[in-house]
Amino acid sequence: MATSTLKARVGLLQFPVSEDKTANHDMASKYLARAADQHVQLAVLPEIWNSPYATAAFRAYAEVLPEIGATDVGASPSATLLQQHAMASKMWIVGGSIPEIYGDDIYNTCLVFDPDGMVVAKHRKMHLFDVDVPGGIRFKESDTLSPGNAVSAFRCGDFGMVGVGICYDIRFPEYALLLNQQHQCNMLIYPGAFNLTTGPAHWELLQRGRAVDNQCYVLTASPARVAAPETPGAYPHYTAWGHSTVVSPWGEVVATCDEHEALVVADLDMSKVATMRQSIPVLQQKRLDVYKLEEATQ
Amino acid sequence: MATSTLKARVGLLQFPVSEDKTANHDMASKYLARAADQHVQLAVLPEIWNSPYATAAFRAYAEVLPEIGATDVGASPSATLLQQHAMASKMWIVGGSIPEIYGDDIYNTCLVFDPDGMVVAKHRKMHLFDVDVPGGIRFKESDTLSPGNAVSAFRCGDFGMVGVGICYDIRFPEYALLLNQQHQCNMLIYPGAFNLTTGPAHWELLQRGRAVDNQCYVLTASPARVAAPETPGAYPHYTAWGHSTVVSPWGEVVATCDEHEALVVADLDMSKVATMRQSIPVLQQKRLDVYKLEEATQ
Repeated sequence: MATSTLKARVGLLQFPVSEDKTANHDMASKYLARAADQHVQLAVLPEIWNSPYATAAFRAYAEVLPEIGATDVGASPSATLLQQHAMASKMWIVGGSIPEIYGDDIYNTCLVFDPDGMVVAKHRKMHLFDVDVPGGIRFKESDTLSPGNAVSAFRCGDFGMVGVGICYDIRFPEYALLLNQQHQCNMLIYPGAFNLTTGPAHWELLQRGRAVDNQCYVLTASPARVAAPETPGAYPHYTAWGHSTVVSPWGEVVATCDEHEALVVADLDMSKVATMRQSIPVLQQKRLDVYKLEEATQ
Repeated sequence: MATSTLKARVGLLQFPVSEDKTANHDMASKYLARAADQHVQLAVLPEIWNSPYATAAFRAYAEVLPEIGATDVGASPSATLLQQHAMASKMWIVGGSIPEIYGDDIYNTCLVFDPDGMVVAKHRKMHLFDVDVPGGIRFKESDTLSPGNAVSAFRCGDFGMVGVGICYDIRFPEYALLLNQQHQCNMLIYPGAFNLTTGPAHWELLQRGRAVDNQCYVLTASPARVAAPETPGAYPHYTAWGHSTVVSPWGEVVATCDEHEALVVADLDMSKVATMRQSIPVLQQKRLDVYKLEEATQ
């Protein structure tokens, strides 16, 4: 089996997010420009980067978003920004996520643009973040959000198939397994905003676990951590864990950062996917005569 | 929901294994007695503890083993040893694994005894260890072993359901998911003998990953590491990673050890399973309308 020595330069854009949508756009633009300056080929934005991460804010910040295959992104200022950077810098952009309004429903949605500015994937967060850890984080996305139903992947040129999930989706091994089973993904990308309860406990563990189980790169991008303002804003403050990370198919942390704003750049050796899959061929050794993961009929 | 404060004292018996079956039996007896002295309620032996871990040895060391429900274990010296200790010490014993001969087939088999000496589970390793890591470990269990087909769990008295896999089975998330889906396991137990290639990279990661994904305790028991003898034995020497470990449902290492022989004792707070499942209710939040893991029809 031939192994490719293809390198993919990826960038994780861990920037701060505020209640000021224009400022968020400026920040995203600044980081996308920095990524382009560093010749990043695939840029990943954080979860909910144009809005505060607060259920009460999502409707106010939501935009009507284009569908897969679109080159006309419509009136969405956030999608327009992503598309313009993709085309200007000839970059793949996994556009973190932004609140999407569709009819009366609100979704937590990731748009992916190819270097020609076409929407090549649109992932609506499938598993909503409804948790209540005693003494820790409480959050209930389903107060305002609807869940998506699609298993989302796209062909990222020479780098092969890339799967996309959002944050809490990473806790569901079935989602990653199904992505990999259907699309033989070389990367799984999860924009996410873990918190100070689950971040230190599970953020890196989940990424390394998904990487080793699926024998592919795993990338995450979080918002930078921002201190709660002295004068409370219009929405509850959310403290993100940060630590945007790249994990190799062998489960190693290839690149990461702390909670501060950062552009994490890494050159991925795509041949490691094939090497891992040949060395420990679990993907061929699954006991499909005993168990089978199926996509349910909708 | 009421949470139990039940404590389970478990013991991981990381003892050295040699080519001398009688010596292996004596060593197992010594460690089982030590576990009983420490009031261990559930003892876990290592993978392949009565035989060298070498494919060429398995047939010579194999025994005819009893079936689930048996109280008469037949002529098997290894099963007899386990049963006697279970009854004498009123312990649950997850009997690591030993080579089993059944007709002309050889299996890598784990017997579980209840405190009355009955066989309550019999797990034949389902995923055979056939790997070839360049510059690292090469092994091909399928040279001599046949794979099992059963998803193995047992009710461990007040501690609830316990799932059993063997070593390489831990690399397959589907197996743990299916165990948990079918039996709502409070513990998953994997006797295993990782090596110096995959041990440092994946042994703890896989345990912590399975624990957090399935929100249950995970226990592993490895043979102690033994230096290769100066005069080669009859079979190739296998260098085990050791590091028998207990991981909590939150993914924390509760107790572990290095590569040397050790009895690892830990008191598990069984209420942590329910707390984790209430706090981050992923087991209720799976998107069974999108994906479904099924047991395949044999």
